[in-house]
Amino acid sequence: MLPNLLPDVELAKILFAELRERTKDGEGVTRDAYGPGERIAHALVREAAAQIGLENTVDAAGNLFMTLPGSDRSAKRIVLGSHLDSVREGGNYDGAAGVLAGLAAVAGMKRAGFQPKRDITVLAIRAEEAGAWFPTSYPGSKSALGILPPEILQVKRMDTGLSLADHMRQEGFDPDAVARGEHALGANNTQAYLELHIEQGPVLDSEQIPVGIVTGIPGSRRLRQGRILGEYNHSGATPRKYRRDAALALAEFAHRLDEEWCRLETLGHNLVCTFCTMGTTSEAGFTKIAGEAQFQLDIRSVEAKSCDLMFDAIDRLSAEIEARRGVRFERGIETGSKASPMDVGVRAGLQRAAESLGIPHRHMASGAGHDAAAFAEAGIPAGMLFVRNQHGSHNPKEDMRMEDFAAACAVVTRWAAEAGQ
Amino acid sequence: MLPNLLPDVELAKILFAELRERTKDGEGVTRDAYGPGERIAHALVREAAAQIGLENTVDAAGNLFMTLPGSDRSAKRIVLGSHLDSVREGGNYDGAAGVLAGLAAVAGMKRAGFQPKRDITVLAIRAEEAGAWFPTSYPGSKSALGILPPEILQVKRMDTGLSLADHMRQEGFDPDAVARGEHALGANNTQAYLELHIEQGPVLDSEQIPVGIVTGIPGSRRLRQGRILGEYNHSGATPRKYRRDAALALAEFAHRLDEEWCRLETLGHNLVCTFCTMGTTSEAGFTKIAGEAQFQLDIRSVEAKSCDLMFDAIDRLSAEIEARRGVRFERGIETGSKASPMDVGVRAGLQRAAESLGIPHRHMASGAGHDAAAFAEAGIPAGMLFVRNQHGSHNPKEDMRMEDFAAACAVVTRWAAEAGQ
Repeated sequence: MLPNLLPDVELAKILFAELRERTKDGEGVTRDAYGPGERIAHALVREAAAQIGLENTVDAAGNLFMTLPGSDRSAKRIVLGSHLDSVREGGNYDGAAGVLAGLAAVAGMKRAGFQPKRDITVLAIRAEEAGAWFPTSYPGSKSALGILPPEILQVKRMDTGLSLADHMRQEGFDPDAVARGEHALGANNTQAYLELHIEQGPVLDSEQIPVGIVTGIPGSRRLRQGRILGEYNHSGATPRKYRRDAALALAEFAHRLDEEWCRLETLGHNLVCTFCTMGTTSEAGFTKIAGEAQFQLDIRSVEAKSCDLMFDAIDRLSAEIEARRGVRFERGIETGSKASPMDVGVRAGLQRAAESLGIPHRHMASGAGHDAAAFAEAGIPAGMLFVRNQHGSHNPKEDMRMEDFAAACAVVTRWAAEAGQ
Repeated sequence: MLPNLLPDVELAKILFAELRERTKDGEGVTRDAYGPGERIAHALVREAAAQIGLENTVDAAGNLFMTLPGSDRSAKRIVLGSHLDSVREGGNYDGAAGVLAGLAAVAGMKRAGFQPKRDITVLAIRAEEAGAWFPTSYPGSKSALGILPPEILQVKRMDTGLSLADHMRQEGFDPDAVARGEHALGANNTQAYLELHIEQGPVLDSEQIPVGIVTGIPGSRRLRQGRILGEYNHSGATPRKYRRDAALALAEFAHRLDEEWCRLETLGHNLVCTFCTMGTTSEAGFTKIAGEAQFQLDIRSVEAKSCDLMFDAIDRLSAEIEARRGVRFERGIETGSKASPMDVGVRAGLQRAAESLGIPHRHMASGAGHDAAAFAEAGIPAGMLFVRNQHGSHNPKEDMRMEDFAAACAVVTRWAAEAGQ
């Protein structure tokens, strides 16, 4: 029988306010990875952890480990983590919510005099916002897990032009040790990883559900430089059968691929398909038939099979449209990533916790990538808990309600107490 | 029984060569409306007409009338005309072919000692290339016909910034007389107008037919500033049912309107439908769902009903897509023009002429606008004859074969001899 542990949500509220105050930038906050903003956030959180009485250590990559010791220090530990960096002029909750939820959980345990069997470590991870600072995914958590390819240390921060290694060194860390693969966490010493994060889409808010149990982080198949080549001709003087209209070829391609997405959804597939950009080029103009069109296509699913079925459709559609419309598809280089299903055991534990607390919840796929994907890649059972949030993420209007955060912290605390046994 | 009259194609060949030499500009030719290029072309043609022994007059707008007198000077005249201006770095045949065909026809009549009953006037028209110089349609022929709205004299040439009136005055003409509506041509004194022109599309070349008898100049209905407004969202985190994707709304709209075009064609309608430009805007980007898309739509048909049916489909499709996809269509201002059917009697005469000469021909709609539309608007029976041409028009690669031009000149000559009776 687990004790009824209450997370210290007040502590988290104070830290949210301080974080916002110390890293504000215009209407939002900026916590640049391996720069002043992230440094401020780590210092603040580290100080709070020390006050709670946690063991603080920092690894070679600057990740901050704040540990509530268990009764069996040799048992595999539980990690509650997320990142502290943000995009430029971003919101106060993306990333920070997961770290502060971990602190609230272990502070609540401390306050209740609860000691788990296993160490419970709150992990503040470095440099998760790949799109904003370094053009690579999860360098912080991958360093902590010893799975960062050493050459990634040479990628440049997009604004400063300095390498990841340079930035680590500037902040007082040890990129050489990272390059040698020294790491604190692995499947051998880590029982499970849980990451609380604001939902970045509208699902929980629309469905009026405070928390979501994440089924997986989707993989993607992407065409960022797709082109369709036809022929420029006079829009008045060229009858239908003499046309090689790249604009209508693109329209047909996009619309029919959208229909295929619908069809796969009715068959139970779960995926998203987005033509992020599409259209004719600057050479097009009024009274001309377009001879070229371009598109950027982003297909994501937790199930690789679902992405693959869409690409099968792309094969069929492009061949058919090429033959019928006299155009040529150039896909360009395909990029993408593998899906990371969340651990079934962690998901079941989260569900038990939410049910025992009477907190409404649903299972859902993540839309974006998260550090939890790196833990899954390292073979550690990983899970995620989403918190209802308004106005999306990566903007100053992120607006997680504190009562939803409190409900999610309760789930995290109960899960961690059970998993830490 | 008509005499077997041969057009003087050699004269036309010499004049084509001189025109090209004197107005060349890079790889093409430039004959700017009411500027040096057009002035050179008019002077050259006028001199050739004088050598043939035609009566030369110039009207208040600078249109050049080169007349073979008929035996009955009070009878309504026949006009064989086209324009002598060109686009910048355009081809040598667009426009000039119609004027030189007229000269070849009357020169052939002169040489054969043939005098028609009616005057046959070769008309070199000013400023037809509206898209290149003045943003208005047919100011030259409309002046000759007395149907130019006086305020049009104030439109500015797009490169010089000077008004049409200023340019007329600079070239020695009389815009005040044009403004007063003084004109030489009207339904009261003109029996018929025939314009030979290179085909600007690929139909005759593809079908291996040297000449086309034009059924009409299409009208148009155009949306040059169409927009579809949705909502920007995260491409990973936003499931299908929460999307308001402007890009896919545009793709569906364009593709289904294209299908409607197909359907109307199978019902016997003759039209073209072009999304000249279409796509997301600069705010779109990778990992975002597009919140806005724009399009420019050009629908043309000789039959107004066909354009109207397409706009009925636009009504239906936009309402349905708005409701289903949560987007909003903004059509912007609609522009367009009325169709000008070519005169049935002139068409029949051209067919008789082609048949009697054994010259393969087909009936076809024009794709673009021509001065013949102004004659039709003025109530004068008007017709057009297209000549097979390679590589389209408005570019240096226009490539009408001289044997095709000769065949077309033979049709023009025979038609004019019959119509001039």
